[in-house]
Amino acid sequence: MSALANGKKWRAGVLGATGMVGQRLVKLLADHPWFTLTEVAASERSSGKRYAEAVRWHLEGPVPEVARGLVVKELEPNLDCDFLFSALDSSVAGPAEEEYARRGYPVVSNSRNHRQDPDVPLLIPEVNAAHLNAIPVQQKNHGYDSGFIVTNPNCSTAGLVVVLKPLADAFGLEKVFVVTLQAISGAGYPGVPALDIQGNVVPFISGEEEKMEAEPQKLLGKWDGNRFIEAGLGISAHCNRVPVVDGHLECVSLRLKKTATLDEVREALRSYQVSDQLASLPTALKHPVVVLDEPDRPQPRKDVNAGHGMAAVVGRIRECPLFDVKLTLLSHNLVRGAAGAALLNAELLAAQGFLKSRNQARAQSVEPVSR
Amino acid sequence: MSALANGKKWRAGVLGATGMVGQRLVKLLADHPWFTLTEVAASERSSGKRYAEAVRWHLEGPVPEVARGLVVKELEPNLDCDFLFSALDSSVAGPAEEEYARRGYPVVSNSRNHRQDPDVPLLIPEVNAAHLNAIPVQQKNHGYDSGFIVTNPNCSTAGLVVVLKPLADAFGLEKVFVVTLQAISGAGYPGVPALDIQGNVVPFISGEEEKMEAEPQKLLGKWDGNRFIEAGLGISAHCNRVPVVDGHLECVSLRLKKTATLDEVREALRSYQVSDQLASLPTALKHPVVVLDEPDRPQPRKDVNAGHGMAAVVGRIRECPLFDVKLTLLSHNLVRGAAGAALLNAELLAAQGFLKSRNQARAQSVEPVSR
Amino acid sequence: MSALANGKKWRAGVLGATGMVGQRLVKLLADHPWFTLTEVAASERSSGKRYAEAVRWHLEGPVPEVARGLVVKELEPNLDCDFLFSALDSSVAGPAEEEYARRGYPVVSNSRNHRQDPDVPLLIPEVNAAHLNAIPVQQKNHGYDSGFIVTNPNCSTAGLVVVLKPLADAFGLEKVFVVTLQAISGAGYPGVPALDIQGNVVPFISGEEEKMEAEPQKLLGKWDGNRFIEAGLGISAHCNRVPVVDGHLECVSLRLKKTATLDEVREALRSYQVSDQLASLPTALKHPVVVLDEPDRPQPRKDVNAGHGMAAVVGRIRECPLFDVKLTLLSHNLVRGAAGAALLNAELLAAQGFLKSRNQARAQSVEPVSR
Amino acid sequence: MSALANGKKWRAGVLGATGMVGQRLVKLLADHPWFTLTEVAASERSSGKRYAEAVRWHLEGPVPEVARGLVVKELEPNLDCDFLFSALDSSVAGPAEEEYARRGYPVVSNSRNHRQDPDVPLLIPEVNAAHLNAIPVQQKNHGYDSGFIVTNPNCSTAGLVVVLKPLADAFGLEKVFVVTLQAISGAGYPGVPALDIQGNVVPFISGEEEKMEAEPQKLLGKWDGNRFIEAGLGISAHCNRVPVVDGHLECVSLRLKKTATLDEVREALRSYQVSDQLASLPTALKHPVVVLDEPDRPQPRKDVNAGHGMAAVVGRIRECPLFDVKLTLLSHNLVRGAAGAALLNAELLAAQGFLKSRNQARAQSVEPVSR
Repeated sequence: MSALANGKKWRAGVLGATGMVGQRLVKLLADHPWFTLTEVAASERSSGKRYAEAVRWHLEGPVPEVARGLVVKELEPNLDCDFLFSALDSSVAGPAEEEYARRGYPVVSNSRNHRQDPDVPLLIPEVNAAHLNAIPVQQKNHGYDSGFIVTNPNCSTAGLVVVLKPLADAFGLEKVFVVTLQAISGAGYPGVPALDIQGNVVPFISGEEEKMEAEPQKLLGKWDGNRFIEAGLGISAHCNRVPVVDGHLECVSLRLKKTATLDEVREALRSYQVSDQLASLPTALKHPVVVLDEPDRPQPRKDVNAGHGMAAVVGRIRECPLFDVKLTLLSHNLVRGAAGAALLNAELLAAQGFLKSRNQARAQSVEPVSR
Repeated sequence: MSALANGKKWRAGVLGATGMVGQRLVKLLADHPWFTLTEVAASERSSGKRYAEAVRWHLEGPVPEVARGLVVKELEPNLDCDFLFSALDSSVAGPAEEEYARRGYPVVSNSRNHRQDPDVPLLIPEVNAAHLNAIPVQQKNHGYDSGFIVTNPNCSTAGLVVVLKPLADAFGLEKVFVVTLQAISGAGYPGVPALDIQGNVVPFISGEEEKMEAEPQKLLGKWDGNRFIEAGLGISAHCNRVPVVDGHLECVSLRLKKTATLDEVREALRSYQVSDQLASLPTALKHPVVVLDEPDRPQPRKDVNAGHGMAAVVGRIRECPLFDVKLTLLSHNLVRGAAGAALLNAELLAAQGFLKSRNQARAQSVEPVSR
Repeated sequence: MSALANGKKWRAGVLGATGMVGQRLVKLLADHPWFTLTEVAASERSSGKRYAEAVRWHLEGPVPEVARGLVVKELEPNLDCDFLFSALDSSVAGPAEEEYARRGYPVVSNSRNHRQDPDVPLLIPEVNAAHLNAIPVQQKNHGYDSGFIVTNPNCSTAGLVVVLKPLADAFGLEKVFVVTLQAISGAGYPGVPALDIQGNVVPFISGEEEKMEAEPQKLLGKWDGNRFIEAGLGISAHCNRVPVVDGHLECVSLRLKKTATLDEVREALRSYQVSDQLASLPTALKHPVVVLDEPDRPQPRKDVNAGHGMAAVVGRIRECPLFDVKLTLLSHNLVRGAAGAALLNAELLAAQGFLKSRNQARAQSVEPVSR
Repeated sequence: MSALANGKKWRAGVLGATGMVGQRLVKLLADHPWFTLTEVAASERSSGKRYAEAVRWHLEGPVPEVARGLVVKELEPNLDCDFLFSALDSSVAGPAEEEYARRGYPVVSNSRNHRQDPDVPLLIPEVNAAHLNAIPVQQKNHGYDSGFIVTNPNCSTAGLVVVLKPLADAFGLEKVFVVTLQAISGAGYPGVPALDIQGNVVPFISGEEEKMEAEPQKLLGKWDGNRFIEAGLGISAHCNRVPVVDGHLECVSLRLKKTATLDEVREALRSYQVSDQLASLPTALKHPVVVLDEPDRPQPRKDVNAGHGMAAVVGRIRECPLFDVKLTLLSHNLVRGAAGAALLNAELLAAQGFLKSRNQARAQSVEPVSR
């Protein structure tokens, strides 16, 4: 079900492979059971070099063997792979991703450019897998053959929505107040100068509050066959940068539609589990929300790697004098919020038959589009 | 008006003089135009030593000359001073402060123990100077002669309420949502272990959210001659510790009673000024709120010393999708939120005739209490 | 060879199990192929509780299953185990370790108390395994039966000596100049207050320079059958605390006895390998020294876990204008410098027949000591 | 003596005025008794803007009034000032400073480019004021009229040499071993990415060790009328970047020529004082070395501002097993090591008659050069 007919792995390319998110993707792909990394591309002067030379590696351990010797390509029209991850900078991602979709490549993007497109799924498999139904419409709208674009949300939105989903299901959600304390790795490399953040807080991240107030509307909304219907939540976000390496912490107050005790809220989060089909994806967790009972958790340095970085960790569930519930949540901005999110999206696409061998895809492409 | 009849300074003692707040008080008193430091006391094994030997000094520059040679006293019944600052730990402050009040000492306390007493002013001179009218009632209730207790709020409440006051005056306040990012110096010394906070956030400070939700009610409320009437605000607080040395940052969303444009809000804060009488206090600022226009300010490391640490610095005034206004504020937790707050309270007490020379006080104390 | 005759694991106890080093030991023992954790003891008020409740857990992930339910014992005379790790505070370790040795327990200690005893091995298996020959003498001197004490060096000494050893073998060593930049976890918990080290350096660690100047003399020296002969090195150490969580970095200049090119030095370090017998110990590395070529490595946050924390990582090998060679080295203070060091020592003791089943040991103890 | 004949202040320009060192210079010049800031220049796209708009201000408090409205110039041939400070990046400083000297401007440079020129003084007034005698030779060599170049040393060299000088005078110096722990502000802005240094140490600063091993030779050497004679010291340096905002800490071991007790060393440092003429310079300290007795000082965050940032703070004077003396020193890298150093150099030049009013200079420039 989850492998190509011939038992081979899908061949994956990474656009923007030398950046922070690109490096995480390269690392996560190095041992992946379904995917094999065959192309790395970047929009920069690093093209032409071997990946090991082109990259300034930020992760623990050495550059993975599978990637070391790959030649970094420019954004060339033909790349030797079945589908593409895009970790491109938003200054170039927009048209580049469309062009690859046009050329028949499924594009699994972490960039913000197409997230709000009316026919592009903004996808978290545990939250809105049914939004994949928008793909055929997208292909038709743009005249794409086998190609398409699927996106994952902003790093600070991802953890939040994974936690909101079971509460929305159980009690209905009306209002969300959220203040973030975001890690420096969320700004890429070189990113935040040490002089700005050492022993300091910067209470501003360009465009971040707007994304956090908009993206959950689409993620928690519905695809009605023609378009996305927004969730109609009230959301207010304050975003801050703090001197933490990895892990976005968020303080949240929630107004629910139905009355719920704190124990019911805790239980809804703790018992939340995904379908067996979803849970069988290599990067998925059966329980994507982890609830901690200690009074002073979650904490970025101690809890960021829960569930291999794919869990949303929740603590301090308590009453809110203004709304109904206060809680604190944490998620790994580069895994659940970026590279892991894209990987999980690709796995869902593979499991649902949206990825094909490019040879097969090309064979199909001479026929009229009929999906 | 603001000095003793004989042109001398009031003699001040500091209880808890070796702690973080006590040290700030000692430093601020070293050059004070109205007060002179004559006693330092502590509830610990440091008594009997010279202050310079007893203290583990945390502030820039050396221990002030005036304090170096003072012998650290225990909490003895008679101290050679006209009034007392109390920076005692809350484990001992409660009965100790009462005992000193009973013995005729005005006690200007930074401790939390008596803040919510029904006849003890919780005072911010710029906000509720009229609450000093509770002092005679307090003296009568407890049979105090010239002594009494006045308190200042918790370090995270102080900055918040200084900013809320002009908005409450101009537009009325209904609801306050606040998330704090608090500095490590707020936890005293040794306080927070480095292993807990290095590159981390701790989303919990014991008792802090309760204080922030309760104290503004009293501060922004009224003294009706017999008791304090609470302001009846809706307040929800989330409190976090971040790896910053000094300065509590707070993300605030506000629901106002009257409609106001962002420019009107900005103007209300920017133009806020205290009376000339208040502004003449040595530690007071004519404009206790500073409004910054840069999109990424205030920041703790860059703005904490605005107004010599007595300003509340506000930035990022913008619309809130859920309430009316979002803003970020910063104040110095050890100055505006503790030592400077107590000093300003003492100055107001002096200016309004509540401090007397102890000799005079003793002379009075042989007469029946009749205030 | 490396297991008890009956195929069972040795039963290990940990003294000081709730501290920073004790926790690391508990974690490392949770999955150990030769040892199983059967006792946790502490000298404190935590005794009587379950380990999971008694400990303030500092490591990633939960308290290991094997330890959660163990009841924390006081330092009782009889513990249900074949040998003991001691991570006791030095204020109690001295007599306690001797008492357990007297009662027949092999004590594998991380504490400093007995490191310089004239008949106690100060052991790094890769460096001076032959020092174990002192054990029978120690047993005879103290009238110990099957018990004895073996120690590992101070956390800052361990990494240094692992790097010095291959150079001493290849070229001879005359003088060592070393300046350390040590992590906060080396001071235990609560250890260093955040107010002392946030954005700061503390150029002093009590007793550390003395240990670094003394311990390598014994480690690199010889056991002549009766006593340890010191190596006669010239060593000068400066020790600093820096705001790093884990990993001691050391800047070293070396005067060699024989002339060597930088390439020869690099090669001596890079090719350094231990015997197959040593390499077969579960915690051992075949190549305990890792040499990096990048100009700005090693770095604590990026390289501290090399070789699962057991490697000494060396970089920046270059000429020294005063001596012969400059280099920078890094090792994990809690693994190579403490818990991993003790574990490796215990493994060597097991492999060489120094550990016995306590039942067996007791059986022997009625016979006269005759080893 | 220290003011222009007409009682006016010298008009100063700052090249590279928007960088970290340039900002410090602008701030220090804002209240200077002898100098007034009349020009700010930069080699970048910021030219043409008002300084307050062009600069990303990093210092406490607002941009000084005197500078706010100045138009940032390019490196134009004519600037309206009597002399220039150069805080230019080394990529452009070399020819630019020469060109300004050629055009008659005294250039007081913080850049590294001309420090080792055979006729350019590398100046620390307390150390080698007599090196100013090289200026006429420099002018003759290059055909400069009233212009010339004077430089100050690298930020890590400055503090070291201020401490070495009294020891060299008292006991003679043979060998210096130094390991630095340098602050991030030393790398300029944006400088060090937070991802590189947060909770980390980077054991490499490009070119820094070379400078530290070379510059003291010139500083502590002599000008013999024709050339600089090097001091002939043995120096070995290891340079590290640590997560500290301001203040370079240095661990030093010294071999003296004459035997000295630790008390004699302490006394030589503590009693070190400059001539009354030097002490009368506005930025000078009578005692440029401060000796601390506490066992764990100096510390960057606590001691960096000693002597308004112009002191070299020394502590931990103790015996060195390899050389004679170990000590730890600290100096402010942006004040004593850069902007304050340049300012003090300019003050010495003014006091010794090397600065002239440019009108006067131009008048002279029509005559043949005859100094």
